[in-house]
Amino acid sequence: MTQPFRSIEWTDHGLRLLDQRKLPHVTEYVTLSDYKQVIEAIKNMTVRGAPAIAISGAFAVCLAAKELSLEALPHAIHEIGEARPTAVNLRWAMESMCEVLEYFRTKSKNEISFALLEKAHEIYDTDVQTNLAIAKNGFKLVPETASILHHCNTGSIATADYGTALGIIRYAHEQGRRVHAYLDETRPRLQGASLSTYELQAFGVPHTLIVDSASGFLMKRRKIDMVLVGCDRVALNGDVANKIGTYNLALAAKAHAVPFYVACSSPSLDPNIVSGNEIPIEERAAEEITTVNQKLVTPEGVHVWNPAFDVTPHELVTGFITEKGLLSPPYGKSLMSLLKG
Amino acid sequence: MTQPFRSIEWTDHGLRLLDQRKLPHVTEYVTLSDYKQVIEAIKNMTVRGAPAIAISGAFAVCLAAKELSLEALPHAIHEIGEARPTAVNLRWAMESMCEVLEYFRTKSKNEISFALLEKAHEIYDTDVQTNLAIAKNGFKLVPETASILHHCNTGSIATADYGTALGIIRYAHEQGRRVHAYLDETRPRLQGASLSTYELQAFGVPHTLIVDSASGFLMKRRKIDMVLVGCDRVALNGDVANKIGTYNLALAAKAHAVPFYVACSSPSLDPNIVSGNEIPIEERAAEEITTVNQKLVTPEGVHVWNPAFDVTPHELVTGFITEKGLLSPPYGKSLMSLLKG
Repeated sequence: MTQPFRSIEWTDHGLRLLDQRKLPHVTEYVTLSDYKQVIEAIKNMTVRGAPAIAISGAFAVCLAAKELSLEALPHAIHEIGEARPTAVNLRWAMESMCEVLEYFRTKSKNEISFALLEKAHEIYDTDVQTNLAIAKNGFKLVPETASILHHCNTGSIATADYGTALGIIRYAHEQGRRVHAYLDETRPRLQGASLSTYELQAFGVPHTLIVDSASGFLMKRRKIDMVLVGCDRVALNGDVANKIGTYNLALAAKAHAVPFYVACSSPSLDPNIVSGNEIPIEERAAEEITTVNQKLVTPEGVHVWNPAFDVTPHELVTGFITEKGLLSPPYGKSLMSLLKG
Repeated sequence: MTQPFRSIEWTDHGLRLLDQRKLPHVTEYVTLSDYKQVIEAIKNMTVRGAPAIAISGAFAVCLAAKELSLEALPHAIHEIGEARPTAVNLRWAMESMCEVLEYFRTKSKNEISFALLEKAHEIYDTDVQTNLAIAKNGFKLVPETASILHHCNTGSIATADYGTALGIIRYAHEQGRRVHAYLDETRPRLQGASLSTYELQAFGVPHTLIVDSASGFLMKRRKIDMVLVGCDRVALNGDVANKIGTYNLALAAKAHAVPFYVACSSPSLDPNIVSGNEIPIEERAAEEITTVNQKLVTPEGVHVWNPAFDVTPHELVTGFITEKGLLSPPYGKSLMSLLKG
């Protein structure tokens, strides 16, 4: 357990989640005993981060198994899987839970519930191991003194442990690299400003916050050694869906010949789609942009376009840092061999 | 007078400014009778926009002429010129005021004060005419149906009248073009979210607000016909200092082959510098990023890099829309002939 706090925990009373919407000023937990509450928590981003919502979704299935008949369970799993459309990890977790359900279908309800809970814990534990493996693999790319630019939050509160991209930064710092992190604030929800700063303060990693649109000018004015981001879904050709702003950041990195790495655990790889054009992009409420701290920053009634994610074409990705090693282009080949194990 | 409100006005009681910091929710004016108050208003962005601060600075000299001895006036003009470092319009206005001072130096204090006030009004009136000429010249580039992406605020409250880039959008709408404006919210101070939306609502121009980092994905998903931005200073080679985020936007435009135009009145051209590397870039307080609506959005004590402007290299600029026509590359040549009249 290397988190500064445990963001997801299964308890006797249900699923206990750190309310990420209230950070960094208020550390508050909610305990959810109904699977529909978990769906709502995923939708309203009480819990966020592709790995974290996959784990939460798995435990939501365990809550559903307590509440519902076995016949009703597949529908509940489908509902949970639809809570957010872009990150494929959640769908992958639901498929894993379905496989358990199928495998134990002749068993008693109690046995099935137990097996589902085992599986949810396994998904959690695997994420812990995967995080560390990604951190170690990414570490090999970090020079002795490194300025690393990061988008959104991909740390311990977005996952079960170290995190993905932010986990590499933290691990490199712990291993004695002189790391300085530049953090995109990540509008509209400011995950960089509120969460990544919070984590790096907790771990003592030096960092500087910038507005998202300053990344190109930062690369022009200061030496940036690499960009590290996470991902919500990767297509077979290497196109990456990630938090809105990732694409602009990748364009700036290309213009300055700064290596652009995507930290990616295998559940983020979608074997069913060939290119990023097929990734459904969630559009969220206008209020995420028009209000900050519950106060309107625009006139009333402003029309907004608020895609939560964008797609970065594979040509802009220097490499994928996975738990199984670094993947280089051509991605069609390297991602396929990752999938085949 | 085609402003929805008069953002700068010389009155018997001093310089009356619309407090831009309080828009869009509160329309409040301040009347400043001391030139040091105007310096403060420029620094704290009560008034902003390169043309608007030049005009305000010119009227500040008139206030200083009332308060100070003739001997003290050149120092006051210097102080006013230093209020903000990046936009060259302010410095240009101060040079114009100095020329008046020099020309009338043998006259009485009353005569000199009168001549300075005449000059300040002339700077104001010239900006009104320049705005309209830019709008008409830019209009020629706008197709019958046009989606135009705009950064920051360059409208009637940043200038004496129509504005520069936003003025083109407004004018094209008034001339019957079917214009849809996409507005970058423009972190950290949200001039796009709070001011450009406000103006386009007032003029009835259809518009959609986006976060700055979504510009590339917007160009991928929807047809954008052109990007229009203003400028704070242009070097002789065509490098442009403008609001932070302009450079990332220009990179996105290039990636999608979207024309990227800079609306520019001649006072924004700095004849003394050869390239953008020589433009001083103002860095502003961390609080602009760490707080929104007076509330902290980060943990306490976060380190921030907050350049108010960036520099877009001339290679990314399709053309400069000036009051004297459209300038095309090579800019060394076309800008020089603009300067020569």
